[in-house]
Amino acid sequence: MVKVGIIGGTGYTGSELLRLLLRHPEAEVTAITSRAETGKPVAALFPSLRGHTNLVFSDPSDEQALAGCDVVFSATPNGVAATHAPALLRRGVRLIDIAADFRLQDIAVWERWYGMKHPCPELVADAVYGLPEVHRERIRKARLVANPGCYPTAVQLGFLPVIEAGLADPGTLVASAVSGLSGAGRGAHVPMLFCEASESVRAYNVSGHRHRPEIAQGLSAAAGGPLDLVFVPHVAPLIRGMHATLTLRLLRSDLDIQALYEERYRSEPFVDVLPAGAHPDTRMVRGTNVCHIALHQPLPDRLVVLVTIDNLVKGASGQAVQNFNLMCGFPETLGLADIALFP
Amino acid sequence: MVKVGIIGGTGYTGSELLRLLLRHPEAEVTAITSRAETGKPVAALFPSLRGHTNLVFSDPSDEQALAGCDVVFSATPNGVAATHAPALLRRGVRLIDIAADFRLQDIAVWERWYGMKHPCPELVADAVYGLPEVHRERIRKARLVANPGCYPTAVQLGFLPVIEAGLADPGTLVASAVSGLSGAGRGAHVPMLFCEASESVRAYNVSGHRHRPEIAQGLSAAAGGPLDLVFVPHVAPLIRGMHATLTLRLLRSDLDIQALYEERYRSEPFVDVLPAGAHPDTRMVRGTNVCHIALHQPLPDRLVVLVTIDNLVKGASGQAVQNFNLMCGFPETLGLADIALFP
Amino acid sequence: MVKVGIIGGTGYTGSELLRLLLRHPEAEVTAITSRAETGKPVAALFPSLRGHTNLVFSDPSDEQALAGCDVVFSATPNGVAATHAPALLRRGVRLIDIAADFRLQDIAVWERWYGMKHPCPELVADAVYGLPEVHRERIRKARLVANPGCYPTAVQLGFLPVIEAGLADPGTLVASAVSGLSGAGRGAHVPMLFCEASESVRAYNVSGHRHRPEIAQGLSAAAGGPLDLVFVPHVAPLIRGMHATLTLRLLRSDLDIQALYEERYRSEPFVDVLPAGAHPDTRMVRGTNVCHIALHQPLPDRLVVLVTIDNLVKGASGQAVQNFNLMCGFPETLGLADIALFP
Amino acid sequence: MVKVGIIGGTGYTGSELLRLLLRHPEAEVTAITSRAETGKPVAALFPSLRGHTNLVFSDPSDEQALAGCDVVFSATPNGVAATHAPALLRRGVRLIDIAADFRLQDIAVWERWYGMKHPCPELVADAVYGLPEVHRERIRKARLVANPGCYPTAVQLGFLPVIEAGLADPGTLVASAVSGLSGAGRGAHVPMLFCEASESVRAYNVSGHRHRPEIAQGLSAAAGGPLDLVFVPHVAPLIRGMHATLTLRLLRSDLDIQALYEERYRSEPFVDVLPAGAHPDTRMVRGTNVCHIALHQPLPDRLVVLVTIDNLVKGASGQAVQNFNLMCGFPETLGLADIALFP
Repeated sequence: MVKVGIIGGTGYTGSELLRLLLRHPEAEVTAITSRAETGKPVAALFPSLRGHTNLVFSDPSDEQALAGCDVVFSATPNGVAATHAPALLRRGVRLIDIAADFRLQDIAVWERWYGMKHPCPELVADAVYGLPEVHRERIRKARLVANPGCYPTAVQLGFLPVIEAGLADPGTLVASAVSGLSGAGRGAHVPMLFCEASESVRAYNVSGHRHRPEIAQGLSAAAGGPLDLVFVPHVAPLIRGMHATLTLRLLRSDLDIQALYEERYRSEPFVDVLPAGAHPDTRMVRGTNVCHIALHQPLPDRLVVLVTIDNLVKGASGQAVQNFNLMCGFPETLGLADIALFP
Repeated sequence: MVKVGIIGGTGYTGSELLRLLLRHPEAEVTAITSRAETGKPVAALFPSLRGHTNLVFSDPSDEQALAGCDVVFSATPNGVAATHAPALLRRGVRLIDIAADFRLQDIAVWERWYGMKHPCPELVADAVYGLPEVHRERIRKARLVANPGCYPTAVQLGFLPVIEAGLADPGTLVASAVSGLSGAGRGAHVPMLFCEASESVRAYNVSGHRHRPEIAQGLSAAAGGPLDLVFVPHVAPLIRGMHATLTLRLLRSDLDIQALYEERYRSEPFVDVLPAGAHPDTRMVRGTNVCHIALHQPLPDRLVVLVTIDNLVKGASGQAVQNFNLMCGFPETLGLADIALFP
Repeated sequence: MVKVGIIGGTGYTGSELLRLLLRHPEAEVTAITSRAETGKPVAALFPSLRGHTNLVFSDPSDEQALAGCDVVFSATPNGVAATHAPALLRRGVRLIDIAADFRLQDIAVWERWYGMKHPCPELVADAVYGLPEVHRERIRKARLVANPGCYPTAVQLGFLPVIEAGLADPGTLVASAVSGLSGAGRGAHVPMLFCEASESVRAYNVSGHRHRPEIAQGLSAAAGGPLDLVFVPHVAPLIRGMHATLTLRLLRSDLDIQALYEERYRSEPFVDVLPAGAHPDTRMVRGTNVCHIALHQPLPDRLVVLVTIDNLVKGASGQAVQNFNLMCGFPETLGLADIALFP
Repeated sequence: MVKVGIIGGTGYTGSELLRLLLRHPEAEVTAITSRAETGKPVAALFPSLRGHTNLVFSDPSDEQALAGCDVVFSATPNGVAATHAPALLRRGVRLIDIAADFRLQDIAVWERWYGMKHPCPELVADAVYGLPEVHRERIRKARLVANPGCYPTAVQLGFLPVIEAGLADPGTLVASAVSGLSGAGRGAHVPMLFCEASESVRAYNVSGHRHRPEIAQGLSAAAGGPLDLVFVPHVAPLIRGMHATLTLRLLRSDLDIQALYEERYRSEPFVDVLPAGAHPDTRMVRGTNVCHIALHQPLPDRLVVLVTIDNLVKGASGQAVQNFNLMCGFPETLGLADIALFP
């Protein structure tokens, strides 16, 4: 059994890690921290875990518990994992950060978008971006994994095959995406109240969202040169689920794009290219690590890619467990075979 | 008082017409038809109307009741209004069709998209497209008004100023829109069940939606030449509300687009250009005839227009009442001054 | 025009008062206070009010603005209205408190349930409980009205006829009620987040809810002697709406209870006894001041009363406007004739 | 591996059976029938099952496939299982009926409530009522199990300890319960549309619901004499979840009811009595076979029992799998250890 620790266990990515790891056949969660809930049984905070664990929240400043782990997941706000990283890595603990501290290789860009000085810039070059469909081999050996954001996961998986194939007109990328509200975390903010968020749809951060440079970094690498996009995130009244609608102009309209995508993801355990003409529904991947992709060409030279994931699973904690499996040499799907909760 | 009739009063656009017209100070609803509910009191079907009306559903084949009206609204499935139109117009009754029978001027295009032979093509040229922000003067005198679809209302209002000004790169228009579920009507279909539609988001008809030629017709007229777009409709779990996210490349990036939109809609009673940087929320126009528009330029030469309407009001029955006011010479906002139900 | 002030205009009862009063033909809102939003235009906080008002939030400590009003509504947390009441009444301003400060005549009971010393116990005896169906004549002349709570409104209206008639076995009253989440107000609390409250139902405060003594006070008065009940409040994932399910054992099972209720509420403009066998739906009164009641006798000697209201209207701000109309000698339904927003 | 068949695999209890059985380590689903979808791959109807099964729906009239099974689950409308039962049992196939055909021992009562002649009354006496907390030993040997209804499961589990202990005043039982909409099944009916069911709460069948005689049968057996109750079912806008609020008068108020319940359910793997003062939340058991129970005494002699289950799991398909485990001699929790999907 691999000893696992979780920093910041009271938010949605933390509780989702618990849901996945407490039933993982090769993981044993031995430490979970929370500043606010230190000393409280985890199952008292999450009655859904009654009978599944006797864990008690420990103080994050007590580094002993975490230091005894083989792998630590950080499910904290941005900027926190980076303060834990040096000490943990020094002791040989491998770290998977579900927040954004190590996602951007350009530290100046990171500091501009995240509005703070980077706590340990010296580790950034060492971090592996945890999108297994791109960096699988490097993840296996990584000691520090930067788990991708939810939007970047969906948008990159949708754009990658056509960009890697050099078929996208670079100035025409548009990503309009809708997220469930759990993407905003468990903080008590008025706009996230049921009475504010139910029965409504709105875009946010249209002039600039932190996930845009992360997406651009990934797409640029795939294109072999700088690439940018228009990225419009929205929230709709659902708890879990993310739907990305990607459009671009094709440089050639005589190719079989459906076959291109099927080929690109043929061996991927968690990316499922739906039959031509399909419209994926976010609920069909709810609670699972699966990404559904469907392709349409409403005009001959325009491609529309529809992508769905569960923002808390493939968009966060599930992908982190996928990375964990890779890092530990386990089958990549271990503990991630849930069937979506339908209806 | 103007005598008003409603054909097809049991769906959502029909009941919304009742909500608006039963309190309209210059309208008297004297006839409402329903094949399935003939003889039943309207308030027995809609308990929300108890105490507001004693109307009883009459048989649509009894043309007497409708013939005695000054204005008739048709809130039926596509293809029905066109079977009533000739007789009603002959008797001098003016007709507002909330469905699609008279929206497309090109009859061949209509017949391809709607999959039927047009029941009275001879009246199509005579019909006025009921978007007051474009055709106000013609609507005043119209005897037959084709009330716009919900998506075409939102998408055209959002694109028009920049297209009329000749600033849009014509091959770059993308409209990604999210509708509340009432847009699908009151028919009993499995995908519209609460258990299927709640907690999910999906796109539909991406390869071709009937509203695309309607939008293209309007935008082409504004551009003075043929114009097409990528149009991706989605449904999200809310009853009412429509959010359109429009993107395009600007031919010039040195102009004040915010001022352009404010100027274009300065005198419009129902189009409200929000302050720069705003993100409209569909609930803020719920139950009202108002359209909120906000503008963003995430890249210097890219424009993102956010548009919100209530799909049943400005996107259907409210706009029909606005057209009714114009046709009757009433103040355009009469009976349409409701404040949105918040929260 | 009657000059109206609102203390605490940023919560849900405050914004609902604005929705109702800004369109009220005899009211002019001249002052609205908010400590946190002083100086901010009301329409900047509530985009739904753009175009409907130019009001600006003023500081609640500036008593001048409120002192110039004829009637002031207090839409603040419990304990605040009572600090404003003495000064306002002294200046001849009439006060309607939507919170609980003056609802309980027994000050010791109030202090126990509300956990504070009553700020002005000397005014309590003077306050009139604002349930027009019981205290209409006293409300007309009141200078201080204690607007009932949402649960007490629904539960009392449902129980009153059978209790006034002496037909209820006093030890058998059970009220199980479900509220929409707006009843909890606009405070940012984790359990009210969309992700916590959606897709779930739960009871709360089963061992004791502040509305129980308020209900007991009203029912005891109707019974002519002390009466208590089991009261179980629940929340379900809807914004607005309250459904109370009342059960009791009848002392006689040979009477026409349907007729009894219809007779009791025959002249009430806002209480509508539905036909025998009906099941009211909260959405059918959404946004309105109407109370729907339906009666069932599943066993010969057991009565089940189903009651629906909109918790923010008849359960709060709408009833306050109804009281305002009575106090000012206006028709009781003035400004309260909205039709429910369906669907 | 036990060979398993499912009759009627396209509704919500059928798809939930698939979710549970496809991952069950000792079950192999070898046949699934659907009249409407014969020949269609199961994963084409339920994209959530892509990659989890290659099953194809077969015709229910082809009895060969089912006859080759060891155990068949029937997830059909009422009256269908009883037409399959005789032939299946004759061939030695054991049958678990998730519908109501074999739940009531009194055939006359069954025929009155279900409005049809019973198709095989001769098997009724042989059927075992599948509530393991009451009939565990008989279920182990049963060849025909009548799986309980969702309301009867929640209401009986909540009432049983206090009734078995002889502490309930028999004329005071009231059960007010709220169900998620999946309880109504997947049929396309207008009241179950999102636009009709969202943002609303209503009671239904208050004068008589089919689950009342089923509950009364179970409680009477526990009491050792006839017992009836007031039962008021409601629907609220959630997909899954059931919350029952039970009230009764205690014959003695000096006993430790919390201890009584804890003792009664001490060895039950799926009934969890929460700490005193708790309020269970339906989402905390979503997707699981767990029943949460909490106890309150708001007045000294009144007991309020709060019960939550997932109506599709412990209230239907999960309990069926629990019965399957008992019948096959497997650990009772096999394949039922999921953690609730939170949030």
